[in-house]
Amino acid sequence: MSLDFELLEKDPHSQARAGVIHTPHGQIPTPVFAPVGTQATVKAVSPRELRELGASLILANTYHLYLRPGPDTIANLGGLHDFMGWDGPIMTDSGGFQVFSLARLRALDMTGVTFRSHLDGSEHFFTPEKVIDIQGKLGADIVLCLDECPEPLDYDYNVQALERTHRWAEHCRAAHTRRDQALFGIVQGGAFADLRRQSAEFITALDFPGYSIGGLSVGEPKEVMHEMLEVTVPLLPEDRPRHLLGVGSPEDFFEGVARGIDIFDCVLPTRIARNGAVFTRTGRLNIRNAQYADDPAPIEEGCDCYTCRHFSRAYLRHLVMAKEMLGFRLATLHNLSFMLNLAREIREAILAGTFSALKKEFLAHYEIVPHEARQRNREARGKGLGTRDQG
Amino acid sequence: MSLDFELLEKDPHSQARAGVIHTPHGQIPTPVFAPVGTQATVKAVSPRELRELGASLILANTYHLYLRPGPDTIANLGGLHDFMGWDGPIMTDSGGFQVFSLARLRALDMTGVTFRSHLDGSEHFFTPEKVIDIQGKLGADIVLCLDECPEPLDYDYNVQALERTHRWAEHCRAAHTRRDQALFGIVQGGAFADLRRQSAEFITALDFPGYSIGGLSVGEPKEVMHEMLEVTVPLLPEDRPRHLLGVGSPEDFFEGVARGIDIFDCVLPTRIARNGAVFTRTGRLNIRNAQYADDPAPIEEGCDCYTCRHFSRAYLRHLVMAKEMLGFRLATLHNLSFMLNLAREIREAILAGTFSALKKEFLAHYEIVPHEARQRNREARGKGLGTRDQG
Repeated sequence: MSLDFELLEKDPHSQARAGVIHTPHGQIPTPVFAPVGTQATVKAVSPRELRELGASLILANTYHLYLRPGPDTIANLGGLHDFMGWDGPIMTDSGGFQVFSLARLRALDMTGVTFRSHLDGSEHFFTPEKVIDIQGKLGADIVLCLDECPEPLDYDYNVQALERTHRWAEHCRAAHTRRDQALFGIVQGGAFADLRRQSAEFITALDFPGYSIGGLSVGEPKEVMHEMLEVTVPLLPEDRPRHLLGVGSPEDFFEGVARGIDIFDCVLPTRIARNGAVFTRTGRLNIRNAQYADDPAPIEEGCDCYTCRHFSRAYLRHLVMAKEMLGFRLATLHNLSFMLNLAREIREAILAGTFSALKKEFLAHYEIVPHEARQRNREARGKGLGTRDQG
Repeated sequence: MSLDFELLEKDPHSQARAGVIHTPHGQIPTPVFAPVGTQATVKAVSPRELRELGASLILANTYHLYLRPGPDTIANLGGLHDFMGWDGPIMTDSGGFQVFSLARLRALDMTGVTFRSHLDGSEHFFTPEKVIDIQGKLGADIVLCLDECPEPLDYDYNVQALERTHRWAEHCRAAHTRRDQALFGIVQGGAFADLRRQSAEFITALDFPGYSIGGLSVGEPKEVMHEMLEVTVPLLPEDRPRHLLGVGSPEDFFEGVARGIDIFDCVLPTRIARNGAVFTRTGRLNIRNAQYADDPAPIEEGCDCYTCRHFSRAYLRHLVMAKEMLGFRLATLHNLSFMLNLAREIREAILAGTFSALKKEFLAHYEIVPHEARQRNREARGKGLGTRDQG
């Protein structure tokens, strides 16, 4: 098998666990946060900077790379690792999420989905087989099954969508031949415990080397996400890595780890950086705020990222207000550093048996963005569905 | 004196010379190319990258920094060096060029110039004394006198403008007190040899520690620029550094050095990078061209920049087509590397007595962008006047 998961330690007070995933391009210590490189680049950041930040896994988007520059171009240039100059582990999603959230849908049945490109309106057809072929050409270490990510609250629709997701999983499993790529199954089921259970049972019966959980953090309250994880994760085999698609924020990271998740990917640190929002241990701050105009302090005292070691809040604010690319880069570097350091801290705590104390201490100081504000942000982006698409 | 110029070698076949400028923030080997950091950042590039590229001097724009974030903010944060995290030598222009090319002019006389901000329409008044005060707060190692940069071909207007530039130079000279800043005088005179001579004589009589030549490369044919340099430079004292404002391209660099110029600054390498244009030894290429879509070669074989060591033309093209920030950064890094390496190569050749051979060899292979194409580009940017303003 191309992927080997080594479980090192289980937290005595939660479902949290620490491990290592071995891939053809190196090891991934878990729990891990994977920065998203939608278009074969983590926005504003170079591969060298990713390495210095200690990133051990990145996620790239099949839908975007299929449309531009195209899988054959990437294959001709040696695959995604060579193409983008990143020699560490890469995961690609299946493109399903973007087809349903970003493209214009044309037709949908058991065989696949027809859609129009958001770039030029051209028509395309994704089948499970085609998505495996595209991901084969891209050459990531971990690839995903085609899945449908429906609105989470319509039960009848979720029943139908789940049927398609399961059929597609079977076809992906059958079409997958590249032995240096690990194909993960995806559990769906919306906000419904019975569908989640049914999906976990169906997908795990297909025996994948790892499992992703999709369709969460797409607008539902956090409590629903927690409940769905509590229903799903115990049905996944302990000896396989578990991935929570498109999640998340620092608080989601803790809550997911506590419920047994190993892999997280999310555009949040990179996307909010481009609006001037940066993470601190007490919550997000927005550097555009006038109060930082003359502030000589770094974003966060004690932070060891390039941004905090060299630049003041005042300078970062100036760059962001002046729309200078360096501003977006410096904010992104800080936010990625924050999430990657948090992942390492969480892992150390699990290994030391102190995860629950760390979680309690972190969440006591960290001010969470309220659900209503998140909903407003989501609507301002013009989307009902989540945050996995645009890096 | 805050600035000391050491002349090391003169080329036997031209006016080219090699030297070292000593400043409070380190040495500047000359001839030197100074990247432009309009808003206290060389666009898309970090200070660390500038250092790795071997930049020894950068130029920042007084007009832009005066409007945003303001000289007091920068002074409160320890001056431009601390503010932007660049501890090497910095030069600021006087803001004059931008007032005349970018702002909306309101009134102009011997005392100064009233203009409206291009950012918010607010009204401001620049006098020679004010410009010295602003630059004092910014704290660059080399600062410039307020000057007027008129259309180069209207003789009568140039006579009047030169009168103002000279009066302002006297006032700047008198107002300048900060001993760790070297104030350069600026020679103007449009496209007219007699005015250039008159200006060189007037300005050098004021005894500045260095001299800038302004009002060239603003749309006139290259031959006119060459002629004006041939008229002006011999009238400047040999023991002071000579700066050609807002120039230039690789070919301008050779032609300027051959006519005795030591310091060049220009937005060209950074600005064209944002359009996907990159320098090679045979001329510019535009990476957006479809022919590079599957090209595995670096921009230029043998180039030792980060971009060429790690990435293909195909990847760079993908990033630029997808409007990814990393694409603009990688193109900028290459172009700056090209210019800074060229400066080092030119300097070595002068020291070795082989400058004329290098110039001949370079220009024999380098395809120059024709005057008509440069004019079209200039008009497409909506400007009669030059390229010094926007980084």
